[in-house]
Amino acid sequence: MRSDVNRCWRLASRPVGLLKDSDFTFSEEPIPEPKADGDILVRTLYLSVDPTQRIWLARDSYMPAVPIGDVVRAGGVGKVVRSNSPDFAPGDLVQGLLGWQDYALLTAGKRELLPASKLPPGIPPELALSVFGVTGLTAYFGLLHIGRVKEGETVVVSGAAGATGMMVGQIAKAKGCRAIGIAGGPEKCAWITGELGFDTAIDYRSEDVAARLRELCPSGIDVYFDNVGGAILDAALAELAMRGRVVLCGAIGDYTESEQPPGPKNYINLLMRRGRMEGFIVTDFLGQVNEAISDLAGWVSSGKIKNRVDVQEGLEKAPATLNRLFTSANTGKQLLKVADP
Amino acid sequence: MRSDVNRCWRLASRPVGLLKDSDFTFSEEPIPEPKADGDILVRTLYLSVDPTQRIWLARDSYMPAVPIGDVVRAGGVGKVVRSNSPDFAPGDLVQGLLGWQDYALLTAGKRELLPASKLPPGIPPELALSVFGVTGLTAYFGLLHIGRVKEGETVVVSGAAGATGMMVGQIAKAKGCRAIGIAGGPEKCAWITGELGFDTAIDYRSEDVAARLRELCPSGIDVYFDNVGGAILDAALAELAMRGRVVLCGAIGDYTESEQPPGPKNYINLLMRRGRMEGFIVTDFLGQVNEAISDLAGWVSSGKIKNRVDVQEGLEKAPATLNRLFTSANTGKQLLKVADP
Repeated sequence: MRSDVNRCWRLASRPVGLLKDSDFTFSEEPIPEPKADGDILVRTLYLSVDPTQRIWLARDSYMPAVPIGDVVRAGGVGKVVRSNSPDFAPGDLVQGLLGWQDYALLTAGKRELLPASKLPPGIPPELALSVFGVTGLTAYFGLLHIGRVKEGETVVVSGAAGATGMMVGQIAKAKGCRAIGIAGGPEKCAWITGELGFDTAIDYRSEDVAARLRELCPSGIDVYFDNVGGAILDAALAELAMRGRVVLCGAIGDYTESEQPPGPKNYINLLMRRGRMEGFIVTDFLGQVNEAISDLAGWVSSGKIKNRVDVQEGLEKAPATLNRLFTSANTGKQLLKVADP
Repeated sequence: MRSDVNRCWRLASRPVGLLKDSDFTFSEEPIPEPKADGDILVRTLYLSVDPTQRIWLARDSYMPAVPIGDVVRAGGVGKVVRSNSPDFAPGDLVQGLLGWQDYALLTAGKRELLPASKLPPGIPPELALSVFGVTGLTAYFGLLHIGRVKEGETVVVSGAAGATGMMVGQIAKAKGCRAIGIAGGPEKCAWITGELGFDTAIDYRSEDVAARLRELCPSGIDVYFDNVGGAILDAALAELAMRGRVVLCGAIGDYTESEQPPGPKNYINLLMRRGRMEGFIVTDFLGQVNEAISDLAGWVSSGKIKNRVDVQEGLEKAPATLNRLFTSANTGKQLLKVADP
């Protein structure tokens, strides 16, 4: 790999279904230079690979869509190469919206989702991008602040072997709840119960999710943490407990569909059982991140939370790596390693 | 009408679609007698006629279904005829779950939804069963405690010329919001804007609700108070503002369906726009009823809230009167007068 060019993936057209390399251009460009005060140039080391990035490519949502011609938006961890900022020195590890490219020029005016921030000392990039990153915080705030779980409650999470789902189940257990995970295939199911301590796993590929939820939750589901949407959301709504909460975190089943899928007809149970269904994004809770990190760090060091990352290598694999989330290929947090730290 | 018998409507079979008299038996029975301490015998004067009573006839919901053979469950206002309770004297006006019958024996053990309570002095039955009754309180707590409206927000309510809807729009205006009502037919629409002070009405019979909401709410709907479910709920979800709230109060369009209607596919906007959709019942807020009554009484006396009741007469018309809600025949709070006060 040459170190004098910036390879970057730019969006060429709005993708339909799974990504194709031809939805993008992958070209070599000059490495950008810090000019304004506050500019920093960052060498990308790891990119975070998240389902929501697929939405950003397709349409405006809680963030504007990536404009055609722009570098694909993605969070990541990198190393500062040059700095016009008193807050960052060359060699610092930082996280921020680096994008699918070797070098990112971060400027004060373009800090869209999260401002670039230094990694806490001693935290490796893989951990910063998973347990202590957007996915871990999403699980934490979603389950505790939106779902408001209480000890002894029954928590069901879909996408349970994914980056956010694995954290939801483990946080539920750490909080004294019963955790049921829905995942695809016997290996993922065995992993979440055997390694992560979920009470039960439901394999949506071989089991009737609706029937299993009915059987496993005779008193209903207190909190359903939804990562997938579609029929599984509807099945969970059918078993919602009185005053049950549905935390809407994702709808991965829908993101690659060009037609809008049917709605959850069992939404009516929100009315009948005084339930609540609520969406959120983690940036709503920026003011409480320190409290979350402190709790998560405690659970990691006491062994209550285990982490798993699924690392692909090579910037050229970016589209294929994002597709892994939509074919259920990943277990744990999906990362793409772009360069050695 | 004979005063020595108790005419009562008992449920004969679970109804499908609009009610038929043959879904019930209407018979003359002996007037029950207070026996246990605390028993009171109440002469029914007015029955409250509410969409939720249709659910009670069909299936278990937030309350158990009315058992086959039981008197049809309904709230109402009556006059105490005999009393074994130190809290009630003959002649007192009380409200409680009287049921579709001339005389109700209320006992401590059978106070299912709301315990019988004396009407506040000077409040006539029509007002006690509308503005200050379940429908007024439902509008109040739904809009303010579930919807958490703030001054300047845009509120949309369906069933806007019905008992709860008319209150929602007027409370929204009293709180400094913009109120848009969805109702059926030009008369109802003219009434809610001309008399009740809604800013705009949408006639769902002659207008494209989705297109009108899009046009009227360029910054989105902050609170949608849903009384109808179905396509109108979906249209409102499509225009939900960032952090918008959907208050689920009813789904009148669905109650008479034997097949479950499609779900709201635009629920996805709860995720994309960090929205919240929540059901409730008024009994969740029993502890705050005094505060609500005080606010409502203030708005009534200052003219900010106007009331309208739609009174049918005669216990024999009970099923036909309940049907009026499902054919949009009523304007304002539907009551059935059973006897003169």
